[in-house]
Amino acid sequence: MQLFKDKIIELGKVYPGNVLKVDSFLNHQVDVILLGYLADELHKMYKEMGITKILTIETSGIMLACLTAQKFEVPMLFAKKARTSNLSEEVYSAPVFSYTHNREYTIIVDKNYLSKEDRVLLVDDFLANGCSLRGLWELVQKAGAVAVGAGVAIEKGFQGGGDMLRDMGLRVESMAIIESMDKDGILFRN
Amino acid sequence: MQLFKDKIIELGKVYPGNVLKVDSFLNHQVDVILLGYLADELHKMYKEMGITKILTIETSGIMLACLTAQKFEVPMLFAKKARTSNLSEEVYSAPVFSYTHNREYTIIVDKNYLSKEDRVLLVDDFLANGCSLRGLWELVQKAGAVAVGAGVAIEKGFQGGGDMLRDMGLRVESMAIIESMDKDGILFRN
Repeated sequence: MQLFKDKIIELGKVYPGNVLKVDSFLNHQVDVILLGYLADELHKMYKEMGITKILTIETSGIMLACLTAQKFEVPMLFAKKARTSNLSEEVYSAPVFSYTHNREYTIIVDKNYLSKEDRVLLVDDFLANGCSLRGLWELVQKAGAVAVGAGVAIEKGFQGGGDMLRDMGLRVESMAIIESMDKDGILFRN
Repeated sequence: MQLFKDKIIELGKVYPGNVLKVDSFLNHQVDVILLGYLADELHKMYKEMGITKILTIETSGIMLACLTAQKFEVPMLFAKKARTSNLSEEVYSAPVFSYTHNREYTIIVDKNYLSKEDRVLLVDDFLANGCSLRGLWELVQKAGAVAVGAGVAIEKGFQGGGDMLRDMGLRVESMAIIESMDKDGILFRN
């Protein structure tokens, strides 16, 4: 999506360690008008797919998920990061490894809110190594629901997570796929 | 707001310790259509006030803040819970005491995203003792900005935070104010 790529070029800042800082419009201060366009685009791409629920993970996937759910007129559900390993019987859980914080944590959703009738669109702000989306996908599978696909704002293509998920059979649509980036600039795939 | 109060009566569950569970529509699974009506209502109430930014706190205030920002066509900003006490010079910070987790933590926003030109609407899903909103208000004051008021989904009136903030001079608008609740039912103010 060109408008969004332009915004990344204009405001994104690249730091060592594959860090792309976009907190002026995506994940701290949030340009909800822009995110609304992304949500429109995801709606166009998936509107024939019978989506019944939007699933994301706290915290920064929530904004895009919320606006996307609005377009589809379905509920949004966000997986929580469990603060304890002592989980109740009433949740589906999955492990997620965070490279940012270099540790594994557990994400959970209440079993009441995912069922085998659900056709789920996974949404997140970033896709890098794919761990978060894999965790969300696992929650959907545990519920016996269908993961119709994923919608992502920024995919770091060079980290391979998106292509891994596509190879595993998940449809993944990203509004901007970064092929490479460094202090001199950002190159997008196609 | 009657529609919202009806939803709380229909789906809310009261537990010991002043806990109101509304995670089927407000803070885990999220009814974005309903939240859109709340956002409309906040927009009606504050639209003449020159709001330039919506400020909330992670995590569960984000959904209403996001939809409210959309109505006002202004950016949304969410304060983060700092994981370290070693804060950078580049953030405004404020302490918040969480009665839920019985500990104090620090909330932060990047100084780049709040300025003295801002007229800010504070948004949150719950208002109980008022600690979160006070923390957000403090961030706004540190930036030299104006807190025009607050918009809240559910105020637990019997915990006094809303009236404390009103006494301190903050305009607080809540979509439902609970006067009392127990296993037999929920009573709203008015």
